[in-house]
Amino acid sequence: MSGCSTTVDCVFYAAVVLLAAAGAGCVGTHGTGAGLEANGASPRSRLRDIALVSRGATEIVRSLTDEVGPRPAGSLGYQAAVEWALRTLRERGFSNVRAEPVTVPHWERGEESGAVVSPVSQPLRLAALGGSIGTPPGGVTGEVVEVESLEAVDKLGRAAVAGKIVYYNVPTARARDGSGYGKAVAVRGAGAQRAAALGAVGVVIRSIGTDHNRLPHTGMMRREPNEPTVPAAALAVPDADLLHRLIEAHRPVALNLTLGCRWLADVESANVVGEIRGAVRPDEIVLLGAHLDSWDLGTGAIDDGAGVGIVVHAAQLLGSLPRPPERTVRVVLFANEEHGLSGGRAYALAHRAEAATHIAALEADAGTESGYALRFLGAPEAKGRMAEIAADLKSLGIDFVGDDAHGGADLGPLRALGVPMVDVAQDATTYFDYHHTANDTFDKINPQGLAQVTAAFAVIAHGIANLDGDLGRIPEQKREGTRRGPIKL
Amino acid sequence: MSGCSTTVDCVFYAAVVLLAAAGAGCVGTHGTGAGLEANGASPRSRLRDIALVSRGATEIVRSLTDEVGPRPAGSLGYQAAVEWALRTLRERGFSNVRAEPVTVPHWERGEESGAVVSPVSQPLRLAALGGSIGTPPGGVTGEVVEVESLEAVDKLGRAAVAGKIVYYNVPTARARDGSGYGKAVAVRGAGAQRAAALGAVGVVIRSIGTDHNRLPHTGMMRREPNEPTVPAAALAVPDADLLHRLIEAHRPVALNLTLGCRWLADVESANVVGEIRGAVRPDEIVLLGAHLDSWDLGTGAIDDGAGVGIVVHAAQLLGSLPRPPERTVRVVLFANEEHGLSGGRAYALAHRAEAATHIAALEADAGTESGYALRFLGAPEAKGRMAEIAADLKSLGIDFVGDDAHGGADLGPLRALGVPMVDVAQDATTYFDYHHTANDTFDKINPQGLAQVTAAFAVIAHGIANLDGDLGRIPEQKREGTRRGPIKL
Repeated sequence: MSGCSTTVDCVFYAAVVLLAAAGAGCVGTHGTGAGLEANGASPRSRLRDIALVSRGATEIVRSLTDEVGPRPAGSLGYQAAVEWALRTLRERGFSNVRAEPVTVPHWERGEESGAVVSPVSQPLRLAALGGSIGTPPGGVTGEVVEVESLEAVDKLGRAAVAGKIVYYNVPTARARDGSGYGKAVAVRGAGAQRAAALGAVGVVIRSIGTDHNRLPHTGMMRREPNEPTVPAAALAVPDADLLHRLIEAHRPVALNLTLGCRWLADVESANVVGEIRGAVRPDEIVLLGAHLDSWDLGTGAIDDGAGVGIVVHAAQLLGSLPRPPERTVRVVLFANEEHGLSGGRAYALAHRAEAATHIAALEADAGTESGYALRFLGAPEAKGRMAEIAADLKSLGIDFVGDDAHGGADLGPLRALGVPMVDVAQDATTYFDYHHTANDTFDKINPQGLAQVTAAFAVIAHGIANLDGDLGRIPEQKREGTRRGPIKL
Repeated sequence: MSGCSTTVDCVFYAAVVLLAAAGAGCVGTHGTGAGLEANGASPRSRLRDIALVSRGATEIVRSLTDEVGPRPAGSLGYQAAVEWALRTLRERGFSNVRAEPVTVPHWERGEESGAVVSPVSQPLRLAALGGSIGTPPGGVTGEVVEVESLEAVDKLGRAAVAGKIVYYNVPTARARDGSGYGKAVAVRGAGAQRAAALGAVGVVIRSIGTDHNRLPHTGMMRREPNEPTVPAAALAVPDADLLHRLIEAHRPVALNLTLGCRWLADVESANVVGEIRGAVRPDEIVLLGAHLDSWDLGTGAIDDGAGVGIVVHAAQLLGSLPRPPERTVRVVLFANEEHGLSGGRAYALAHRAEAATHIAALEADAGTESGYALRFLGAPEAKGRMAEIAADLKSLGIDFVGDDAHGGADLGPLRALGVPMVDVAQDATTYFDYHHTANDTFDKINPQGLAQVTAAFAVIAHGIANLDGDLGRIPEQKREGTRRGPIKL
């Protein structure tokens, strides 16, 4: 892909050149105040307006999803994605484009199937959870025990669970902030271990998703080397509903679960990094992250092709300005967000000595819909500076809110090192309709939403890169993330 | 299933008994005029109001889809459906419940897969068209030639098509009247033959569907014993879009198509018939039809579990009245609508001598959403009588419109014999999101819509069953349907 491969892209580039040239005299002026104003518009608000009409981020997602496709950790698809990313960053004008080594786990799905076998016959649409062990040939067959939580299976105890297949039926609530996912997902992570400890022979869960399609949602389950586990799969939501109704009407119900998934040896893989070098303070870094890997069922358009499109195009926009940003804007496309976060850990480990020069980090990993809120976590006294930068997002419908930012999953280790975090909260109302399913494909991309978030990232990155002073460090007591447990480098 | 297996059903039956008892003196009074009025409401408008609050039709769909599931012609699932139907009709108070013999074709899907193999690798989600031949082991691989119509492939000619895989990319437009389907479906029926005649090695079509899910839409293709054919499959819509984009960007594109489908020997199967016997003219018949078979991918909830629910529950409502209808209301659950209409042909052949005593026929085979129009085709002079009956549907939002009825697919042979047809046009805006896919499952049922259509069928059936005089015959020149070609018995 060249930087100008489509008509839309070419029109856009012409617009960047014209608009930037018109305001060239003031682009790159320090600070966030009145000095930036010229012709009644700051360079950041012009940047925002250009990004809003561009389809550059969408074109990046198209290229990644069409030309690479599924790219789970350790796969040939991920290798192809690394090649794609190196080529794309170079073609789009990035400097210091490189692959940085990451060791990743390698798990393969194989063939899989499931069916209610008694008292009626019904094929079930399911997908192994990422990291599940496979079944013996012919699968495991057992009576189903339905529960609503991890606590409920513990309460049932060994007598009720041994020899059976445990069915965790936990609905995912639809919410703009995506909070339904966090509330439901615990059974995906820990359900197999908890059931195995009580002698179960297998686990199925209701997909952690808000749709009604017969397309199961996969996702990582925990796998501890020395603890018992069992084969585990997610049922598509309609199949989960069917199983529930059959159990209500006809208990006992038996099902067969046949999973061909397996673990292979770890693979030497890579994060891909590229930079828009800063003109004034090139060693100070504003990090824009997304993850390059995807699950295997779809082509990873919303998770996280969208994020790749957002950060690559936002940084490219900064690189297209007549004057580069003062600090370096570094794009990091992380390996293996989905299966254990080894990309984020490897980056933090390799760049630990630079932690103090990472002025802030933002990750785009929340899909394709518009942003509605900006959150910050850094030195409390730097909040006002972020609020000033955020003023240029007001017209996008993005409000600066008081809550602490969390930071994307890949940024956890940087957060632990005190690097300030900025979150653009995106509308997640429909995100969990497609997340981790075969339906996560390019047609689900909303170009307007993607352009709006790209505009936000461009404005924020430009603002932080050109900020007088910095954003401090995250206070010690706030460095530990809560969403995914303790952060280890 | 008993007739009162759920709380909703039980409440409903109590309501029928109470309401019917209150108006018992006038239920069954002849004619459609003022004689039916009592307490300000006709028996038909009471019937309508009771049906509207009932969930009986939905419960029938649940039972069929949960307890039988997929039931394509010739399969064990269809055998189970016949047993289910005989039991259900008996339990719900029908008389003369019987299976009537039908010989059906037997085609099985087997394992299937597809992928773009050059210049990139992308798995494709596809489903063999019903009736396709299988591929050799390893499948067929070829360069793809994309066309927009049957005429376009003819125009390309043998030199451009021989040895290639033809891709028919015809979008299906969303429309309330479902007309987008009829406009797009020709390539499904005839595409393989047309491509085979020019030396193609395989065919893929864009699914005839309006959704964006990675769930392909199957459906019948034509198969003439003495004409060449090739393996043919439908791509899910997102996969069809992907293939189109890849061809635009990277022609030539090659794909592999591996279909394990095969033809087996014909099977002796059955229509299932049951009656609410008429009290006054039992040999005169109002036929309510739906089809009992489904495609194999889903559980046939909207196609045509919904129709089964509508006609069985509507007739059951008539049977629950203190006075039975004057004429017999006969429910016919047809075998094999999907794969060649042999159920409808067998019924017409077996009941040919009774054609003159079939006063009218209605089929429910348009899903789960509300009706909006009523159409009639019979003696022109009988139109006014139908309009009178239709007056009771006005409050349901169903208007009597002037266009001729067509009659459901299974009714074509009866139409050819002159039996008057009545159509309830249902809102098909979302029907082709699910039709013939794995997504056609119980959760797609809209209980309110189903109840409204059930109310309409009950009112119409009661009106015709109790009509003074009849609806005549369809004029000779209007007996031939147009949708599926000439009708043969």
